[in-house]
Amino acid sequence: MFHLKEKTIEVETIYEGRIIDVTLEKVRLPNGNEGMREVVRHSGAVAVIAQTDEGKYVFVRQFRKPLERTIVEIPAGKLEKDEEPLETAKRELKEETGYSCNNIEHIISFYTSPGFADEIIHLYKATELTKGKQHMDDDEFLDVIELTLEEAQQLVNNQEIIDAKTAYAVLYLQLL
Amino acid sequence: MFHLKEKTIEVETIYEGRIIDVTLEKVRLPNGNEGMREVVRHSGAVAVIAQTDEGKYVFVRQFRKPLERTIVEIPAGKLEKDEEPLETAKRELKEETGYSCNNIEHIISFYTSPGFADEIIHLYKATELTKGKQHMDDDEFLDVIELTLEEAQQLVNNQEIIDAKTAYAVLYLQLL
Repeated sequence: MFHLKEKTIEVETIYEGRIIDVTLEKVRLPNGNEGMREVVRHSGAVAVIAQTDEGKYVFVRQFRKPLERTIVEIPAGKLEKDEEPLETAKRELKEETGYSCNNIEHIISFYTSPGFADEIIHLYKATELTKGKQHMDDDEFLDVIELTLEEAQQLVNNQEIIDAKTAYAVLYLQLL
Repeated sequence: MFHLKEKTIEVETIYEGRIIDVTLEKVRLPNGNEGMREVVRHSGAVAVIAQTDEGKYVFVRQFRKPLERTIVEIPAGKLEKDEEPLETAKRELKEETGYSCNNIEHIISFYTSPGFADEIIHLYKATELTKGKQHMDDDEFLDVIELTLEEAQQLVNNQEIIDAKTAYAVLYLQLL
């Protein structure tokens, strides 16, 4: 694959923020020319398919500023510094929904937008849930809803579920 | 859902680039407090599951600067201004792989990272392909490969396929 590689010549930091950093990277293209790449740096995230003992799945409804609308997603959250994704998954599930899980397994990890961002999402499935209390971040507001797979598929059809990780999760559950 | 809405107070433009713009948005949170949201603006993209008459699927291997590695993806590309996604899908398939398609249908659209970006990907399935010549962008370098579904699943397992749209596509094909 070496014939496709782009070599970094220079990196300019555009922005260093709370969730993302942005860099502008000058590269040597495979044909020897120079090119520019805009890169969003992100610490990575987890998402959790959480199945209740009643066979329902736990979702959150949340306002997403970039989209200017509320959408329904599986519980998810950003990796904290030096945190193992598995621990993040258990922590975010508990914080966002109140549910602790006794059993959790990794399903897949994927980059969300490899063309311009390095964000990776680690997807887990959690079972043997116990309901407790939510502990949300100061700037986090969401409704927890529990749906059957059929109800979730309806929300995909009417575009209330409309993000990649949750669409993947619903498809994954259909295949089980 | 109005109880979850965040009202924009002020928008600061951080960066205006070729692929992305970045804004910092001060919002009124549902509890009345102020919050800050970092938002990456993107024009949206298309991705195409292209099936050859031999029943194979067309993929591209490409170096992705944000990841500093080559990965295997379904053909995809950015919407040009005022371009209909269906036209983008046909154009990108042709440009990246050389294939024209006689039949194309929309499968699903999803946001890739609704927490910080407004990028949406419109996913299509194309059949009745005719091979022609590639016409890549000046800064685009990729290998076209054709895989059976089983071979694609292998690449998911060994993480050469590791982005959300392509992982979704492979799962979608498994369900057909």
